[in-house]
Amino acid sequence: MPQRIVVVGAVAAGPKVACRARRLLPDAHITLIDQDDLISYGGCGIPYYVSGDVTDEKELRETSFHVLRDARFFRDAKGIDDVRILTRVTAVDRKEKQVHIQDVQTGETGVLPYDKLVLATGSRPNVLPVEGRDLDGVFTISSLHKAIAIKERIARGQVEKAVVIGGGAIGIEMAEALTDLWGVETTIIEFMPQVLPRLVDRTLARMVEHHLREHGVQVFTGEGAQRIEGDGGRVRRVVTPNRTLEADLVIMSAGVRPRGELAREAGLLCSPMGAIVVNRRMQTSDPDIYAAGDCVETLHLVTGKKAYAPLGSVANRQGRVVADNLAGIPSTFDGVVGTFIMKVFDICVGATGLSTEVARAEGFDAAEGMAVMSDRAHFFPTQALMFLQMVADRRSRRVLGVQGVGAMGDGLMARIDAAAALLPRRPTVDDFGTMELAYAPPFSTAVDVLNTAANILDNVVSGRIATVEMAEFLDWMDDPARHPEWLVLDLRHPREAEPFLKRFPDRWMNIPYDEVRPRRDEVPRDRRLILVCNAGTRSYEIQRFLVTIGIDNTLVLPGALNVARRLGPAWWPEGTAGD
Amino acid sequence: MPQRIVVVGAVAAGPKVACRARRLLPDAHITLIDQDDLISYGGCGIPYYVSGDVTDEKELRETSFHVLRDARFFRDAKGIDDVRILTRVTAVDRKEKQVHIQDVQTGETGVLPYDKLVLATGSRPNVLPVEGRDLDGVFTISSLHKAIAIKERIARGQVEKAVVIGGGAIGIEMAEALTDLWGVETTIIEFMPQVLPRLVDRTLARMVEHHLREHGVQVFTGEGAQRIEGDGGRVRRVVTPNRTLEADLVIMSAGVRPRGELAREAGLLCSPMGAIVVNRRMQTSDPDIYAAGDCVETLHLVTGKKAYAPLGSVANRQGRVVADNLAGIPSTFDGVVGTFIMKVFDICVGATGLSTEVARAEGFDAAEGMAVMSDRAHFFPTQALMFLQMVADRRSRRVLGVQGVGAMGDGLMARIDAAAALLPRRPTVDDFGTMELAYAPPFSTAVDVLNTAANILDNVVSGRIATVEMAEFLDWMDDPARHPEWLVLDLRHPREAEPFLKRFPDRWMNIPYDEVRPRRDEVPRDRRLILVCNAGTRSYEIQRFLVTIGIDNTLVLPGALNVARRLGPAWWPEGTAGD
Repeated sequence: MPQRIVVVGAVAAGPKVACRARRLLPDAHITLIDQDDLISYGGCGIPYYVSGDVTDEKELRETSFHVLRDARFFRDAKGIDDVRILTRVTAVDRKEKQVHIQDVQTGETGVLPYDKLVLATGSRPNVLPVEGRDLDGVFTISSLHKAIAIKERIARGQVEKAVVIGGGAIGIEMAEALTDLWGVETTIIEFMPQVLPRLVDRTLARMVEHHLREHGVQVFTGEGAQRIEGDGGRVRRVVTPNRTLEADLVIMSAGVRPRGELAREAGLLCSPMGAIVVNRRMQTSDPDIYAAGDCVETLHLVTGKKAYAPLGSVANRQGRVVADNLAGIPSTFDGVVGTFIMKVFDICVGATGLSTEVARAEGFDAAEGMAVMSDRAHFFPTQALMFLQMVADRRSRRVLGVQGVGAMGDGLMARIDAAAALLPRRPTVDDFGTMELAYAPPFSTAVDVLNTAANILDNVVSGRIATVEMAEFLDWMDDPARHPEWLVLDLRHPREAEPFLKRFPDRWMNIPYDEVRPRRDEVPRDRRLILVCNAGTRSYEIQRFLVTIGIDNTLVLPGALNVARRLGPAWWPEGTAGD
Repeated sequence: MPQRIVVVGAVAAGPKVACRARRLLPDAHITLIDQDDLISYGGCGIPYYVSGDVTDEKELRETSFHVLRDARFFRDAKGIDDVRILTRVTAVDRKEKQVHIQDVQTGETGVLPYDKLVLATGSRPNVLPVEGRDLDGVFTISSLHKAIAIKERIARGQVEKAVVIGGGAIGIEMAEALTDLWGVETTIIEFMPQVLPRLVDRTLARMVEHHLREHGVQVFTGEGAQRIEGDGGRVRRVVTPNRTLEADLVIMSAGVRPRGELAREAGLLCSPMGAIVVNRRMQTSDPDIYAAGDCVETLHLVTGKKAYAPLGSVANRQGRVVADNLAGIPSTFDGVVGTFIMKVFDICVGATGLSTEVARAEGFDAAEGMAVMSDRAHFFPTQALMFLQMVADRRSRRVLGVQGVGAMGDGLMARIDAAAALLPRRPTVDDFGTMELAYAPPFSTAVDVLNTAANILDNVVSGRIATVEMAEFLDWMDDPARHPEWLVLDLRHPREAEPFLKRFPDRWMNIPYDEVRPRRDEVPRDRRLILVCNAGTRSYEIQRFLVTIGIDNTLVLPGALNVARRLGPAWWPEGTAGD
C-alpha cells in the first residue's frame, strides 16, 4: 500500500508540502484538505486587491503563467491524488492514525487514514473584545472572502470614512489601499505610542506616521478603540478615550494568532499562545505529524528564544522542509531573524532583527547608529535619501538589527536583505563596516549606507561620538526651558541656516562646517552646543575637532535635520527643504 | 614632535585614510599628496559624466552637501595639515623614513620625513600594444582629465562613430554613455568570446550583448583590435581580423593594473602583476608603510587565493582599516568575494563570487541553477522578470557565486548583496534555500528568486533534474541534424506554442502543463523530449512526472524560452513575446 500523506490546510505551507512531496514521492497517496473553497492564494496581496492595483481576486490565486490554482489544478497539474475543499478536519485520532472530516456544506462526516499527517492550519486574526465588534461593516482580514466583501462595499460607494484599528504593517497597507485609489477618509488608531510597534523604533515610526498624514491618513497613537457604535446593525462610529471617529467601515488589524486547536486537542505540544511546537525538521511532538506555516512556533535566531512568525514567506520555506523530510531528505528550518518590508505611499520601511527597544527589553545593552545619506551616488539623478539605523550590543559589538526608511523602490530591501542574510551568523559591527556590497553609481555609493551605519555605530559603541536623542531634541525645541544652556551650532550653508537663525535667534547659531577650523575662536564655550547639520556626518567631524580645542561637552543630533524635518515638527520654517 | 603621517594618492583610499586618521589622531601631522590637480573624485561616475547624466565634472568632486573636495576643503574642512596637489612622489627612502617629492609644474624637488607612510597610488589602464594607440582620439579612461577631454570632443560634434575596445563593465558603460544621450554610433569589440568575461557566464553575457544590440550598440566578440589607423595623426579606423570599423573616437577599456612602481623600487614586496602585498591590517612588508586601494593585492574569500580588486568601494573600506590601525585600533580587511553591478540601458547585470566558468577553472566541480521569475509578486503591476543563476560545488554543496540580469532598478542588487554578505561564511545551497529575505508583494515573492535559484540548484546537485545546456539547445535549433532524435515538448498554453508548432512542425509538439497527466498516453516514447516552458519550472515538474510513467530520458531547458528569446535567436517567431 502506498504511503498515505494527509495535508490539512491549502493556503501557503500546505500546497507547498503537497506539491513537493508529489515530486519527491511519486508513489505516495497525497490528500490536500481545506475548509474554504478559495485555496492557495497570496494573502499578502489582499491590500493590493482592495486598493485596485490588482483588479481581480483571481490574480491572487493564479500561477505566474496565469492558471488558476483551484482544486482541479492541484489534481491535474500538480498530481495531488485527492483535493478536498470545503472540508473541515474536526479531529485527529493519533492512535488510529486517522483524521475525522466533515463536509462544510452537507455536514457529511468521514474518516481518512494517514501514515504521515501535515498540519498547515494557519492563523486567525485577533478580534479585540470591544463592544460593537459584530456590527455590519466591521472586518478583520481573515480570508480572501472578507477582502472581496470589503472591496464590493467600497466599489458600491458605501464607504466614505474608514477606521483601521491597529497600526501594524497590514493596518497601514489597508489604510493606504483605502485612501490612495478610493479616496476613503481613513484614520488609523494604534494603542501603542507609535505605529509599527516592536518592528521599528520611535524615530522611524514617527517618520512613517508623518508620511501617512501627508498623504491624508489620520493617525492617532497611544489610543485604543473603547467601543464601536452603529445604527440599525451597521457600523457608524469608533469611540476612543480622546475622540469619536465616524466610520462606515472598520478594519481590525490587531495581529493574528495560530490556529492550533486541532493539534492541541490531539494532545500535541503547543506553546502558551497556542502555536504548535516543532523541531528543526518541522516535526511535532508526534513524529508522524509535521506542521508548518502560521500555526507553528519557531526560533528567533537573534534572541535565541521561541518566536511566532506568521508570514507567507516563512510558511513556504517551512513547507519545503516538511516535504523533504517526508521524503527522507534531511532538511531543517532553523528559525527566523524577523525581516519585514512594506510600501507606505512613496516610501518604504523595513527591518530585520531587533529594534533598539526590543533589544533592550531582551536584556541587551543596545546602542544604535543612524546613517542618513543618498541611496546611490549623490551625483546620480535618481538618488534619494535613505535612513538606516543599526542596533548592536555595546559590549559584544554584535549587530542585533537593522531598520530603515527609503524612497519607494528596492534600495532599502537590498540593505535589509544583506543584513538578514548575515544576522543568523552573529555578525559584529566590524563585519558590517567592511561588508562587500555591489557598487556602481546608479545603484549605491562607494561606502554603502549599510557600511556607513556600521561605521557610525562603531563610533557610538567605541565612545567616539556623544549624541542627543532625537526625541529629547524635539522636546527641547518645543520647550527651551528644559535645557536653557543648550545652543544649536548649525554647520550647514548660511543659506540653509538663515530661516532657523531668524526664528530662533537666542538658541541657534551658524558656522559652516568648512569654516569651523579657521573660525574656531567664534565657537562659544559658555553654552552646551547641539551640533546640527543635515545628516549628522559633519556634526560628528566637528565634534571630534572641538574636543581637540578643549570643547568636549557637545552633542551630535543623529540623522540631524533630515530626520527632524520628516517628523513634521510645528517649528519647522516653512519652505525650507532641509536637504 | 607629533607623529608624521604621509599619504601618497588622493583619489579614494588616500583621502579616506587622511580624514579618518585626522579624527582619530588629533595630534598627528598629516600630509596628503597627489600628482594631479583634480583629487577625491568619483571615478566610477565618469561614464555618467560623459553621457550627460551628470552635467558638470565638479559634481563628481563634490560632497553630498555640494562642497567641492579640493585642496582647500581638505585643509579647512577636514583639517589635513598639508595638502599638496601637482606633487609627485619620486622615491621612498625607507632607511631615512622620508619620501622624495617633485613639483609637477616647476620641477622643484624636496624631501618629506614620515613616521608612517600610506601608499594609495591607485591603478593605470592597460594600453594594448597595437599600432596606432597613440593617435589623437584614442583614449583610456585613466583620469577625470581624460573624461573631460572625451566629453568636450563629443560636445563639439567631433564624434560620429566610436569604437570601444574591451567589453568589460567600463567599456559597456562608456558605450551606453556614447549611444544613449549623444547618438554616437558605437561598436564594442571584445577579444574574449563574450562580454563581461569572467564576471558572468555565457548565457547572461549573451543576454547583455543582445540588449546592447537592441539599443543600437554593435557588439563583436571573439575579435580583438589588430591595429588602429588614422589620417594626419587623428584616428579614423579600427581594424580587426574580420572587419574595419570607422571611428573618430576609440576608447580602450582593457582593464587596469596597479601602480606599484614606487613600492617596488623601495623594495616592498609586490605581486607578479605589480600589486603591493599587504597583510589583513593593510601593512606592507615594511610595518611602517601601509597601502590601500587599487595598488594593493587582496585575498579572494571564495577561492582562498590572491586577487586584484580595483574598485572604489574596496578602496574606501581599506582606507578606513588603514586609519584605524594608524590609530592603534585593531581592524582588518579580510578580502573580497568579487561583487559587481552595472546598468546597461534598461537592464542591470551583476554578480558576486565565482561564475561557473571561473569556478571550473579554479578546480571546483561546479554546477549551476538558473531561476527565471518575477522579481516581485506576479500580480503586482510593476513586476518584471529576473534571471538569477547560482553556482555551487557539486560535492560540498558550497555556494560559490550568484549572477543575474534584471530590470533596471535595485531589485537585482538586493539579491546580489544578500549573497555577497553571506559568501565569506562558506554557505551551502541549503543556507540559500531557507535564507530569510524581506517579503511584501511590491518588493519580492513569498519564495524569493534567490531562494528559488538555490532550490533549483539543490535539485541539480542532488540529481533530481536532467538539463540540456542553453548553448547546445540553440545549436540544435540552428542545425537539427545534430540530434535528429530530439523533440521539443512545449508545456505552455497552446496560444503561446502555436507559432513554434507552425515553424517547426517536425520537432515541436504541445501539451499544456496542466494536461500532461490526464493526456499522458499522448507523450511520445520514441523521441528524446526536450521539455520547454517559459521559465523551466513547469518543465522540471513534468520531468519528475514522466519518470514515474517510465519516460526517463527527457531534458529540461533551464531558464527556458524566457532566456532563449533574450538571446535574440534568428528562429524566434516574430511578434511572440514568450513570457
